[in-house]
Amino acid sequence: MDKLQIVKIGGNVIENREALKDFLTDFTKIKEAKILVHGGGKEATQMAEKLGIPVQLIEGRRITDSANLEIISMLYAGKLNKTIVAQLQAFGCNALGLSGTDGNSISAQKRAPEPIDFGFVGDVTQVNDALFKTLLTQNITPVCCAITHDNKGQLLNTNADTIASEIAIAMSTHFDVTLSYCFEKKGVLQQVEDEDSVIPIINTSLYETLKRENTIHSGMLPKIHNCFEALKKGVAQVRIGNPKMITEKVKHTQLELK
Amino acid sequence: MDKLQIVKIGGNVIENREALKDFLTDFTKIKEAKILVHGGGKEATQMAEKLGIPVQLIEGRRITDSANLEIISMLYAGKLNKTIVAQLQAFGCNALGLSGTDGNSISAQKRAPEPIDFGFVGDVTQVNDALFKTLLTQNITPVCCAITHDNKGQLLNTNADTIASEIAIAMSTHFDVTLSYCFEKKGVLQQVEDEDSVIPIINTSLYETLKRENTIHSGMLPKIHNCFEALKKGVAQVRIGNPKMITEKVKHTQLELK
Repeated sequence: MDKLQIVKIGGNVIENREALKDFLTDFTKIKEAKILVHGGGKEATQMAEKLGIPVQLIEGRRITDSANLEIISMLYAGKLNKTIVAQLQAFGCNALGLSGTDGNSISAQKRAPEPIDFGFVGDVTQVNDALFKTLLTQNITPVCCAITHDNKGQLLNTNADTIASEIAIAMSTHFDVTLSYCFEKKGVLQQVEDEDSVIPIINTSLYETLKRENTIHSGMLPKIHNCFEALKKGVAQVRIGNPKMITEKVKHTQLELK
Repeated sequence: MDKLQIVKIGGNVIENREALKDFLTDFTKIKEAKILVHGGGKEATQMAEKLGIPVQLIEGRRITDSANLEIISMLYAGKLNKTIVAQLQAFGCNALGLSGTDGNSISAQKRAPEPIDFGFVGDVTQVNDALFKTLLTQNITPVCCAITHDNKGQLLNTNADTIASEIAIAMSTHFDVTLSYCFEKKGVLQQVEDEDSVIPIINTSLYETLKRENTIHSGMLPKIHNCFEALKKGVAQVRIGNPKMITEKVKHTQLELK
């Protein structure tokens, strides 16, 4: 099978213009077929403030009401996605931006309002692997933002890590997929204060230990859950680390089932 | 040759939620291959006001500085484009939103700053007909917003009427193209106060007369110029009228070269 690289970038890489440009330079160097998935960053909160739209939080998690969904669609599918695509085009990578509604690329269902009503938030139900395959065959690089749709006209805010793993799973029937979660750290750290204490390999039993010891907690838990889900469902390789890992041999965390 | 319908919708159809929904219902009924091009409407000006960003006008025409370009990319490529695509998906039309940078669909060059510097405004230099053809072959309906790029990383605000005619011209080597400019009126009017005084056919000699008599002036001039350019360069049929003309036999203005 041909190789496919799926790379997810999040907050800090996106918010820093220079870091984003550096990342996109490296991303362009990937020779095989590739898909980029990007999160949104903090700009949505800043924009809501500027427009005087209240942001409601429940247990530290954002509620996506219709006014905030509008901001998200403007920033993620509009400004950010098009900035990334235009920059990739300038670097010679034929990128094409997609939200989940474009070509019905990613369908989702609105999360049930119980126990907490998160608003217009979607959980992925289907990835249109045929569309991604068609684009990749034409040497086009899909650039996906973290917005899906419910096939009934409603856009839905969706976790970018989950979008990346769901695309990776769906594409693993066609490709030998490597899924890379890039963030500001070099990988999953043994000691949070020591940037170099990267855990090189996390397998399922070490994962249980790290959870028990509270080495892995809060936001890292669903991220690693997504990693293992991807591995269980056919993705060949999953790793977490700094964007440099996609082009250079640098320290990072590799996830393994065994 | 197979038929292709290219439909451009502008201001009033976009700004009214019900009118937009009605239009999209009708657009979905087009059985042959189709492409939708949409303008932006007045929301960009309102958003600039809300965000406290000044809008500069020279001779009644907007200057697109970088702050206003950002607003345009948020509203046109983000909110509006994705709203339209999601609604079409709900109606069973497999739409896919594009700005000119996506898949390098429409390249442009920044307009020269002399005699007037309009800022980040682009004039179309190339349409990627191969991309549009690939999408149409997959039964995907491209939905284009009025943003292009310069292949060097810069997005450019571009006239939606021109985008529609340039796509129509490029696609006329592959399809028998009908280009429909939809707006709030029933067509080009003989008397502006009489909504029913639609001129059924405008050919080049009548166009000259109408210009001389000042029946056609201001914003209608470049629109009709685009129509004739399209006809001269291979587009089979060009018409101006109310969105109803795409599904019903209603009064409208047909443009003809002879």
